[in-house]
Amino acid sequence: MKLPEGFRASGVACGLKPSGNPDLGMIVSDLPATAAGVFTTNRVQAAPVQLTRRHIRRGSARAIVANAGNANACTGKEGYADARAMAEHAARGLKTSKERVLVNSTGIIGVPLDMAKVRQGIDEATNALSTEGAADFAAAIMTTDTRPKTADATVGPARIAGFAKGAGMIAPEMATLLAFIVTDAAVERGLLVEALKESSAGTFNAISVDGCRSTNDTLLVLANGAAENEPIGAEHPLAGAFRDALNEVCASLARQIVEDGEGATKVVSIVVEGATSPREARRAAGTVADSVLLRCALNGADPNWGRVLAALGTSGIPFDPNVVDVWLGGQLLCQNGAPGPGDAAKARAALLDRDVEVRIGMKRGDATATVLTNDLSADYVRINAEYTT
Amino acid sequence: MKLPEGFRASGVACGLKPSGNPDLGMIVSDLPATAAGVFTTNRVQAAPVQLTRRHIRRGSARAIVANAGNANACTGKEGYADARAMAEHAARGLKTSKERVLVNSTGIIGVPLDMAKVRQGIDEATNALSTEGAADFAAAIMTTDTRPKTADATVGPARIAGFAKGAGMIAPEMATLLAFIVTDAAVERGLLVEALKESSAGTFNAISVDGCRSTNDTLLVLANGAAENEPIGAEHPLAGAFRDALNEVCASLARQIVEDGEGATKVVSIVVEGATSPREARRAAGTVADSVLLRCALNGADPNWGRVLAALGTSGIPFDPNVVDVWLGGQLLCQNGAPGPGDAAKARAALLDRDVEVRIGMKRGDATATVLTNDLSADYVRINAEYTT
Repeated sequence: MKLPEGFRASGVACGLKPSGNPDLGMIVSDLPATAAGVFTTNRVQAAPVQLTRRHIRRGSARAIVANAGNANACTGKEGYADARAMAEHAARGLKTSKERVLVNSTGIIGVPLDMAKVRQGIDEATNALSTEGAADFAAAIMTTDTRPKTADATVGPARIAGFAKGAGMIAPEMATLLAFIVTDAAVERGLLVEALKESSAGTFNAISVDGCRSTNDTLLVLANGAAENEPIGAEHPLAGAFRDALNEVCASLARQIVEDGEGATKVVSIVVEGATSPREARRAAGTVADSVLLRCALNGADPNWGRVLAALGTSGIPFDPNVVDVWLGGQLLCQNGAPGPGDAAKARAALLDRDVEVRIGMKRGDATATVLTNDLSADYVRINAEYTT
Repeated sequence: MKLPEGFRASGVACGLKPSGNPDLGMIVSDLPATAAGVFTTNRVQAAPVQLTRRHIRRGSARAIVANAGNANACTGKEGYADARAMAEHAARGLKTSKERVLVNSTGIIGVPLDMAKVRQGIDEATNALSTEGAADFAAAIMTTDTRPKTADATVGPARIAGFAKGAGMIAPEMATLLAFIVTDAAVERGLLVEALKESSAGTFNAISVDGCRSTNDTLLVLANGAAENEPIGAEHPLAGAFRDALNEVCASLARQIVEDGEGATKVVSIVVEGATSPREARRAAGTVADSVLLRCALNGADPNWGRVLAALGTSGIPFDPNVVDVWLGGQLLCQNGAPGPGDAAKARAALLDRDVEVRIGMKRGDATATVLTNDLSADYVRINAEYTT
């Protein structure tokens, strides 16, 4: 994937990951870029999240610095000082102000950052910055991801490029650990903030790998205007196209995170129809997506619709179980809360696919929502019993 | 375990379990017994739950009938008719009224009961009733349980005996699939209801195996007065002893369910201290207990305290992360939200034990709570990928 105009990126190994794999990446905009961000709603927020929240209030940024191998979370005042030192050190090398550097960390919680390594990594990454650096950056932010995650789209004369990492501690609000989107479009801040919020609701905030919200979740977007288009505001003819393109990139990255979820063998769409509001539909779908029992059944391709209804019953929504329909793998296995006419053998065959669908008809209203999750496999447990987050 | 006076029990195999293992049990009181119950809060409630809720309103019962192998949940109007037919059939054999029979089912969801088998099972179980039948009954209600669960206690001249089954779909409110307690004490209904509610709050409602609330959870208690004691009311000298004894039985059964949780290798106590209210403490402990990521780490004896804080941060409690302490295996690994002086190697060694403790100091108030859970193992996933609930 090629970076949009006016961006350079890099990824280097500075020794934070015991494996020796790349673990520090930078994306730099040659021009000051309009910036917006969405962050974890976890009460416990990592130092870089606290700092980047503060920096992004200015609405403009020049650089994203991200390290893997250490989340700099639950590290106290020293952790916050370290996050600030990361921004300062990068700002010095880039000849910009520290407030224009957005820092991000992912990896183990509760261990102080090795700042000597981080400083050296920032120096090397600054020297390695290149318009061809997208792949190196994508690799440097991986943790338990098995593959890098990128997506791109065009909007008028401009392009959008996105990067993300999963693959555990994934739950809505904010859904992904780290995602970065850069565009050379000129976009007014108001539209950028609004479009990002809108896109994240239906994409990053509509996926769940394990129902666990991380301390470091961050989604950032930088728009540097290098495409020299007339700035896109809410009333601009390209506003719709920009929203669509941003959404396309977010949706692709969010899906890639679910596909690469720890131990996952399937991508599961939980589709809720007939809710009284989009909020209710998302809540219903999210509750079903978080059912450990259902996700085990899907791992075994078991068309166990009772687990769908049992999960839905704990959502807090005052629905009538006696009207609910459930389709698994396209088969209507539950009709009006009781066994339906669908063919369980056909459902089982469909559940052997990589992509499976759980569809729920609540018959309360017209609202729908889809939440993406994956199956829960014995490998997920193995990864998380052995891997220190 | 011997049954209290005036109770007989039995367990037979009627063919609902494909394994041919015992799957239908009865406990009968020779005298009308004062009865109280606590039920699942899932919006989706199995037919026997709906019926037994109705029957227990009378406050008096003669018999508990329970089958495993089929939950009679999500089975529509026919399912309710089947539950009623179970009560009627048992009542006929016992020469009592159907309202005095409390029916219970556990097993697969969404499959109609084979009533021919159930009727035959009830007939056989009625014939097999015996004062020595406790073990047979305990065996007949098992599903994925690897062992039967019983507990007993004495109170003055009377005895209390309890039975329970786990071992999946276990989450607070109501916590266990099925639990039955019988006593030959004479107990006034008011005290019985209150003591049961109180006991279940700190026992059955303070355990979690997978955060999944079942459609069939039921806890019943019958007190038949065969010990011929003066009826125990709230002001009776034995009221405290009765509460204590009931609580002891509930606590033992609840703990046995966690110990035998599907795939579990450890019993984990999540202890929260310094909350502003017992409710807040329970909520904090429950949120941590439901963290899939933490439970995987405990499976691997990984002293990963960051996952404790990350889970706590999603509880909705407005606590200050910068004052929280976390002990794992007795080691203070997190102090004031940052790495503490505890020894991680000692914590890891302690986490290899069968019983482990996660202790959280919130420093907001004086309230405490303990929730029992277990680790999440690859075997849990295997059991639930292969087993149709």
